[in-house]
Amino acid sequence: MACPVARSLERVGEWWSILIIRDALHGFTRFDEFQKSLNIAPNMLTRRLSGLVDAGLLQRRRYSKRPRRYEYILTERGRDFRPIIVAMYAWGNKHFAPEGASVVLVDKKTQKAADPVLVDRRSGRPLNERDFVFVAGPAASERTRRRYAMLDQKKPFAPQRSSRQVQGRKRRAS
Amino acid sequence: MACPVARSLERVGEWWSILIIRDALHGFTRFDEFQKSLNIAPNMLTRRLSGLVDAGLLQRRRYSKRPRRYEYILTERGRDFRPIIVAMYAWGNKHFAPEGASVVLVDKKTQKAADPVLVDRRSGRPLNERDFVFVAGPAASERTRRRYAMLDQKKPFAPQRSSRQVQGRKRRAS
Repeated sequence: MACPVARSLERVGEWWSILIIRDALHGFTRFDEFQKSLNIAPNMLTRRLSGLVDAGLLQRRRYSKRPRRYEYILTERGRDFRPIIVAMYAWGNKHFAPEGASVVLVDKKTQKAADPVLVDRRSGRPLNERDFVFVAGPAASERTRRRYAMLDQKKPFAPQRSSRQVQGRKRRAS
Repeated sequence: MACPVARSLERVGEWWSILIIRDALHGFTRFDEFQKSLNIAPNMLTRRLSGLVDAGLLQRRRYSKRPRRYEYILTERGRDFRPIIVAMYAWGNKHFAPEGASVVLVDKKTQKAADPVLVDRRSGRPLNERDFVFVAGPAASERTRRRYAMLDQKKPFAPQRSSRQVQGRKRRAS
């Protein structure tokens, strides 16, 4: 699939892989650290680590000759995955932490909690759905172009606040 | 798991579910629209849609009595998933689109491409790994606290630019 979201998922679209990247971003590098953190079966962890090396997110490096031992270091591609983890963290904390936050992203110096929001780097404007939309890009296939042209004809997605509003709103058929 | 990333993945940690949410954020609401877009087996699509309804990301709504037909509308929780999709999109475009972008996020008015970056809403500062770290929150379990305390003792994760640097850099053992 040409969609960048689909391509991302092809590389890491799996529960364990994303948690391994999360742990690597937290600073873990060694097999036993990942295993202890994730409580994952060793053969499964081996498979996932290899997959992440193949996908170019982790780099394998020997840290001991005898016994022969390797650690797993994030590549640039792996480190660039961080915003996805931070966005998941914010979403999880907002929607699935009724007892309060178990993990918080804080400013190292002040220890104050951050409130993550996606903005356009140049203008600083929040990338909300009212102002920013996905369109077919220069390398889009004919299929992708048709898909986005079809979406253009649908009513633009309007912000909704409550489920009552969702219930009551009329949507135009495609 | 208490980690908000793990909790998020428990709800949508599956390739198809994330692509369905992507399509719903693009404006699709109906079974045949999702099916056409994703080229997914009907029974799999039915299962994934039910899962997303159960997880509170989609709401099922009847739009036709005879024949009885339903559409799937994003809830607030589902719409809040958008930053994760946007972050995946940016990562996919950067790392897995050698032929150029097939999909671009643009400013509706100017049609200029946006460059997504995560910042702290209050201060506007980029949430990079140098300045912002994850720590155990107020609702953290004893296990989570120990985990983050252990991470504290590791060398903080320093930004790296090239794989050569990664190769050459020494890391302190845990």
